[in-house]
Amino acid sequence: MANFILSVLVENKFGVLARVSGLFSARGFNITSLAVGETEDPEISRMTIVVDADERILEQVKKQLHKLIDTIKVLDLTGKETVERELLLVKVNADKTSVREKIIKVADTTGAKIVDIGKKTITIEEAGDEHRIKALIELLKPYGIIEMARTGKVALSSDK
Amino acid sequence: MANFILSVLVENKFGVLARVSGLFSARGFNITSLAVGETEDPEISRMTIVVDADERILEQVKKQLHKLIDTIKVLDLTGKETVERELLLVKVNADKTSVREKIIKVADTTGAKIVDIGKKTITIEEAGDEHRIKALIELLKPYGIIEMARTGKVALSSDK
Repeated sequence: MANFILSVLVENKFGVLARVSGLFSARGFNITSLAVGETEDPEISRMTIVVDADERILEQVKKQLHKLIDTIKVLDLTGKETVERELLLVKVNADKTSVREKIIKVADTTGAKIVDIGKKTITIEEAGDEHRIKALIELLKPYGIIEMARTGKVALSSDK
Repeated sequence: MANFILSVLVENKFGVLARVSGLFSARGFNITSLAVGETEDPEISRMTIVVDADERILEQVKKQLHKLIDTIKVLDLTGKETVERELLLVKVNADKTSVREKIIKVADTTGAKIVDIGKKTITIEEAGDEHRIKALIELLKPYGIIEMARTGKVALSSDK
């Protein structure tokens, strides 16, 4: 089993997501990250799927993805030159002034953005590759993470 | 039909996504944006779902979501004070020097980040709310969008 990244263009219709995710779950593949959003054409969505799978069986899934009536294009970006990014929102405990200052310093030094300040919490936004996101989470953990939401990865092929 | 935003904590197991998306598609609800990523606990994922639904029937879906064995928590963030963000990667046609300069200027003035420069393309990353993402897309459209990937929305409740 290894991690693969697929980018699938589909018709933006109800049921597509259930059909696509059903193809993976039927084989016991775990989707570790999924991002679905509209493209420049509102009738077409792009699904970026990171899946932990067996390579041979994944080839079968890709063929079946192609056959789905709502599928327009299946791109396997695994091992390709790509730009990969994800977004993190993380709410951190910040009930003391001294802690608040430290958290604000973490945001400053990492280039992350403070997007909400509550009485006892600070919420931070960070965009970047997986490494960058993970590094920020590690830096914030000691203060107490209250909740977080990650978008899952999006990827485009690189033209370099 | 109206847009609702749900934040669902689930066990990070295979099949969960298929079961959750199946609940929506069985009622003809269209998931317009979906972001699935790990939380601070790698065994728990957060799904942020934007769905175009009928309010009464959505209440039924929420009850059924609660009943799913892998569901830990269902939060309805519709109409609440939240921080909502998404991420965009967009590859734009930039085959002439004059066009390249204009695109770089768009990135500079909007605060978007240039993440890849090819011989004939420029790829830009932008994080922000829906309004900000849409505005950037409109600014870049005249140059020719080659491909784009949006993460879908993530949201956390605001503590303001």
